[in-house]
Amino acid sequence: MINQKNVELGRKRSSIRELFEYGKKRKAEIGEDKVFDFSIGNPSVPAPAEVQNALKEIITQTDPVFLHGYTSAQGDFSVRKTLADYINLRFKTALTADCLYMTCGAAASLTITMNALLNAGEEIITVAPYFPEYKVFCEHAGGKLVAVESEDGTFQLDLKKIENAINAKTKAVLINSPNNPSGVVYRERDIKKLAELLEKYSEKFGGRIFLISDEPYRELVFDKDVTVPYVMNYYAHSIVCYSYSKSLSLPGERIGYIAVSNKMKEFEEVYAGVCGAGRALGFVCAPNLFQQLVKKVYDKTSDISIYKGNRDRLYSTLTGYGYTVVKPDGAFYLFVKALGGDARAFSERAKNFELLVVAGDDFGCAGYVRVSYCVAPDMIERALPAFKALAESYGK
Amino acid sequence: MINQKNVELGRKRSSIRELFEYGKKRKAEIGEDKVFDFSIGNPSVPAPAEVQNALKEIITQTDPVFLHGYTSAQGDFSVRKTLADYINLRFKTALTADCLYMTCGAAASLTITMNALLNAGEEIITVAPYFPEYKVFCEHAGGKLVAVESEDGTFQLDLKKIENAINAKTKAVLINSPNNPSGVVYRERDIKKLAELLEKYSEKFGGRIFLISDEPYRELVFDKDVTVPYVMNYYAHSIVCYSYSKSLSLPGERIGYIAVSNKMKEFEEVYAGVCGAGRALGFVCAPNLFQQLVKKVYDKTSDISIYKGNRDRLYSTLTGYGYTVVKPDGAFYLFVKALGGDARAFSERAKNFELLVVAGDDFGCAGYVRVSYCVAPDMIERALPAFKALAESYGK
Repeated sequence: MINQKNVELGRKRSSIRELFEYGKKRKAEIGEDKVFDFSIGNPSVPAPAEVQNALKEIITQTDPVFLHGYTSAQGDFSVRKTLADYINLRFKTALTADCLYMTCGAAASLTITMNALLNAGEEIITVAPYFPEYKVFCEHAGGKLVAVESEDGTFQLDLKKIENAINAKTKAVLINSPNNPSGVVYRERDIKKLAELLEKYSEKFGGRIFLISDEPYRELVFDKDVTVPYVMNYYAHSIVCYSYSKSLSLPGERIGYIAVSNKMKEFEEVYAGVCGAGRALGFVCAPNLFQQLVKKVYDKTSDISIYKGNRDRLYSTLTGYGYTVVKPDGAFYLFVKALGGDARAFSERAKNFELLVVAGDDFGCAGYVRVSYCVAPDMIERALPAFKALAESYGK
Repeated sequence: MINQKNVELGRKRSSIRELFEYGKKRKAEIGEDKVFDFSIGNPSVPAPAEVQNALKEIITQTDPVFLHGYTSAQGDFSVRKTLADYINLRFKTALTADCLYMTCGAAASLTITMNALLNAGEEIITVAPYFPEYKVFCEHAGGKLVAVESEDGTFQLDLKKIENAINAKTKAVLINSPNNPSGVVYRERDIKKLAELLEKYSEKFGGRIFLISDEPYRELVFDKDVTVPYVMNYYAHSIVCYSYSKSLSLPGERIGYIAVSNKMKEFEEVYAGVCGAGRALGFVCAPNLFQQLVKKVYDKTSDISIYKGNRDRLYSTLTGYGYTVVKPDGAFYLFVKALGGDARAFSERAKNFELLVVAGDDFGCAGYVRVSYCVAPDMIERALPAFKALAESYGK
């Protein structure tokens, strides 16, 4: 018998992927434009023009032995230096190149960080709703993911519930803001309180509790008055897991980084753990061409005004139809209360209207569905009558 | 305390990296051209022109949303189909696209395969000399690496020693041919005997023993009469871990694949395990641009005649100076008997002549040093007097 845990993970698609595959089949049956697929978080807005230009320039002007050669495992020094300087400029931190470790995207950032921190049986607390793969990553690293509920009706941090979950086995709290799937940005005052809590219980239990911030959606914030707090400025023992997948529409290229706060006493040890975990998991280095790319376009994003337009159109129309939705500040998801209360039943019924929305149960939050609005605006227009008819079928 | 095993891995550089870093320092001190750095396996021959041309064409002619978007976790179907067809053409196999799983290079191919197969405490047998990271990868996957000696004086498989090492905990035998660091290509007759052995003991112990073939150097073979047997044609329970790092000089871009033989009864389970392990380790998908690249240049290689020239020049000259070397059939390494018998002492003394060669102890083979000849031919010419003087210092 080979490793059955991994066999099972390989056999069982995530419910997101399951629905996405159903959508592909259904489109083949009735036509691409007849199916309204809100299942998957694959950016629909192309990478900005700067990406193509920079790629062409790098490929034609760089010595191929350097360009396609190994970088150090942490990533090319000049790339890390450029990104550290930019973080410092934006967030008034004092990171050096050696605080950064380039990765193959957000998932790699997370698995490496978890493997660096966790000893067998230790726990990571996260806040529901949360990205389902957290559980897979954490368990493979030998840990246990403990999900606590968010504040009722807002999806903000519920500090009391986090406090109740902390115990001597807690190694880290993992947050994701802007949040997948709720789109909520956690409030600064709650991040402050969370930092106090982690300080208090690190002392109480005599073992450091780290704060991991998963930030693939940091740049996808739609309103000027919303800022996403930079966790290192509130808690010294912070690790930021960043990715360019969504901000630059490069999810298939796998490029991101881990930034370890140099304000923490254990910095050298934690960074070494990150290097060791990256090595043991087989990452070697992040793709060099894309390291060189982000060095050039680190401050660019795709045209996120399209996502903002989608959010505004969907939010105002769906609430008008009688759906209950917390208005998302960022990312590209709406987390909609399932009519009738049962999210799986709602998602199934939605299929009758050719609407594909993911039941929130796998996000640790029953009674909601996720609507990914990283789609073409005209699909939203075509889908609205289906959303309306679905609501009416529930007597709205 | 965070995970100390990973901290230690991160703190302790491999001896290869250690020497490479020393070389960089030394070059800064006495001049780039005065240090003869044979420490690292970073291809010195640039990627073939077809790579740059294909990259430019792909970037300018492909829809960026597709090009930079997620592929399925296994890799883009048309990429896998193209590569499977090519393997079938070359090796008379009957693989389908669904036998292949695209990876971020050879290291990822290995960690994913090991995590797919191993249960805690199970063993993988490999043959010394072997690539030192095998141990790191295997232990992280919960297994134990058991290294057996190769045939005395030839570095070929010693089937008696492999047989003696097989027991009820053996999950796989891992071979690497052409071999890093010896350059040896394992003989077809020994692969046949190895297959018989694995068949016999799989039955005897009632648990399947797999054959993992790590093949980053497959295309780097210098003589027409040398062929590298394709293991699937000898043993149904074979898994090939392939990489384009060395053949196309793309080590920093991380692209390769796992091919699971569809002749094995447990195919569906093993492939699912590969998918599950890739997911749990955080790989998501292999970089899409480089997937599309290898679809176009799968049958190209860098100009390996340069490596052949280096091999011939170094082999004939060093043996003339009194060194003992098994002539390598492939890869780009010479494994040279350390004069005086102690490889670490020899490697240290070599530094006095500004020669950087890696002691073989970490390759599980004391008494030898590895000379990486993926270097500029003119550096070899400049280094020859140093090799001569070093030999003379041992009384040769």
